[in-house]
Amino acid sequence: MRRIAVIPGDGIGPEVTAEALRTLRAVAPDLEFDVLDHVNADRYLATGTALSDDDFARVASCDGALLGAVGDPRVTSPDYARDVLLRLRFELDLYINHRPAQLLHDRLSPLRDQGRRPIDCTVVRENTEGPYVGVGGALRVGTPHETAIDTEVSTYRGVRRAMEFAFARATRSVCLVDKANAVPHNGTLWQRCFREAAALRPDLPTRHLYVDAAVMLLVQDPTAFDVIVANNAHGDVLSDLTAQLAGGPGTAASANLNPQTGYALCEPVHGSAPDLAGTGRANPLAAVLSAALLLDCAGRAEQAERIRTAVRTVVRDLRCTADIGGSLTTSGAGAAVRDALHG
Amino acid sequence: MRRIAVIPGDGIGPEVTAEALRTLRAVAPDLEFDVLDHVNADRYLATGTALSDDDFARVASCDGALLGAVGDPRVTSPDYARDVLLRLRFELDLYINHRPAQLLHDRLSPLRDQGRRPIDCTVVRENTEGPYVGVGGALRVGTPHETAIDTEVSTYRGVRRAMEFAFARATRSVCLVDKANAVPHNGTLWQRCFREAAALRPDLPTRHLYVDAAVMLLVQDPTAFDVIVANNAHGDVLSDLTAQLAGGPGTAASANLNPQTGYALCEPVHGSAPDLAGTGRANPLAAVLSAALLLDCAGRAEQAERIRTAVRTVVRDLRCTADIGGSLTTSGAGAAVRDALHG
Ligand SMILES: CC(C)[C@H](C(=O)O)[C@@H](O)C(=O)O
Ligand SMILES: CC(C)[C@H](C(=O)O)[C@@H](O)C(=O)O
Repeated sequence: MRRIAVIPGDGIGPEVTAEALRTLRAVAPDLEFDVLDHVNADRYLATGTALSDDDFARVASCDGALLGAVGDPRVTSPDYARDVLLRLRFELDLYINHRPAQLLHDRLSPLRDQGRRPIDCTVVRENTEGPYVGVGGALRVGTPHETAIDTEVSTYRGVRRAMEFAFARATRSVCLVDKANAVPHNGTLWQRCFREAAALRPDLPTRHLYVDAAVMLLVQDPTAFDVIVANNAHGDVLSDLTAQLAGGPGTAASANLNPQTGYALCEPVHGSAPDLAGTGRANPLAAVLSAALLLDCAGRAEQAERIRTAVRTVVRDLRCTADIGGSLTTSGAGAAVRDALHG
Repeated sequence: MRRIAVIPGDGIGPEVTAEALRTLRAVAPDLEFDVLDHVNADRYLATGTALSDDDFARVASCDGALLGAVGDPRVTSPDYARDVLLRLRFELDLYINHRPAQLLHDRLSPLRDQGRRPIDCTVVRENTEGPYVGVGGALRVGTPHETAIDTEVSTYRGVRRAMEFAFARATRSVCLVDKANAVPHNGTLWQRCFREAAALRPDLPTRHLYVDAAVMLLVQDPTAFDVIVANNAHGDVLSDLTAQLAGGPGTAASANLNPQTGYALCEPVHGSAPDLAGTGRANPLAAVLSAALLLDCAGRAEQAERIRTAVRTVVRDLRCTADIGGSLTTSGAGAAVRDALHG
């Protein structure tokens, strides 16, 4: 992996992505960047498309991508996410959304007795199917007789490849989360694929939870989890919860990837946070840790670990933004990480 | 409301329901009960049906119902929930699932600084539509080419009546939670109905959150919420989370209701907890508080409040089960509540 497409996007996206880029340049000077500054809500509002076919081709021709955030309060249409982020996930077939959650420091946990039981788990989210497929419609739209329909689709191939990734990553256990008791056909297929994948790893403890029970148990006892595998919708919710339990949106990173092609698009779990944009209060660490994930995906584990060590240091030393206990600005916090790289 | 159908169900269901019934008899001696002991997993396994048409007619002919828990590890089929609980919800048109979450005592909060910001909110969950409708199928079942499909359906009428209930209950604010950026047709309809309902209550602050952000914010700052209105699936997850933030499954109650007919089916949020069944460790308070909700729905607010006051007293005094800090058995904890009624 040498050429990285960069989509700073909206809101705090450009600010935090700038820090992630500076960090990447510091640890991996041989990387090249193709920055697509114009893929954002302004352009979507002006033209109806934020990511043109040419832009898509540019991103696809790179070996990986870094994204800041996509979302703007002026854009109410659900088509915007589909135009940029969901298009990239679907058309690059980035079928895994890999969201590790690890508590960087005890003080960041919102839970009472987290010193004794820190969270260290990974949500492996299927990223190209489920209720996100965009198959649906509505009749009598806008009338008192409207009926709206969206379809949740899972395929054996889609679920099995997600299972393979989940089981390959697990060291302690794999937990399947679904809602098979209410959504039967998708649920039955997920459970079959889970059993089949588990049979190939008889050494590994497995467990099944309905999504409502999983949410309760995550708050009760996060140590109960290693790898959680779930569909696109449950994975979305669970990974935001694990991110919050691991210290909040300021430090949560994610990788959208295709383990076959090796393509990875990494992005913070947080959104564009329009209220923070331009205030200098946005935490750049989620973007910086997303850059580290990108290096991991590129087989550059050592460079990734250098970034993560630096991040742990600045968090411990309170050289960070206010949301996680420091008093630095976005760029100050980014500079602190780069300082710590040489520490 | 005079005649109450009682379905103790599976696992800890019968044990906790027994305490709820004793409490009800103590505060509302004029109520009559029709106990359907046989509606459970044993019967489902033996005959393929747990709730026969005759049973359904018995439940429907009462004015309300109390349910313990339905679920058993021996039953893997998703049809069991549909046979009992979902059938009752759908065929009695219990279109609201009302799940209040209130921290009974500071020590029960899993969050760090809950003394300062206790949770006190209500999830109003649409209970008859969404991905629970059971519309779907699968092709090439059991093969490597299987495709599974489930359909999420919302209707204007269904969403509007949920909104009406939510806005009528709110005193501080209403928050719509959906995933319109990924599930567009249902999302668009929900947002329209929300705007329409909000326009009738211009005094009331409103807010919209995507479900992933809502989960994060609930953990970050539960005081930000009063009434949360959501579809069947999001409501399921959100209400288990709010229940956990309010002290866990031991004290979370819910009401499935039809505000037009007045019919209410109340049940603990927790499941059948097979590992606890028969150990005497099950907490009866969720069932007891479900009985209080049933009294509320029957317009017997004073009797309901008597139960709730007694529950707060026993929780404060640690006269409860171990999961919430006491050392009593299920029946001991039930007896403590009844004691406290006269305190
Ligand atoms: C048993 C299951 C189908 C049910 C639901 O999801 O509605 C339960 O979790 C609940 O919340 O009452
Ligand atoms: C923007 C939205 C469609 C997206 C998702 O739900 O996948 C986001 O929440 C995420 O998790 O990356």
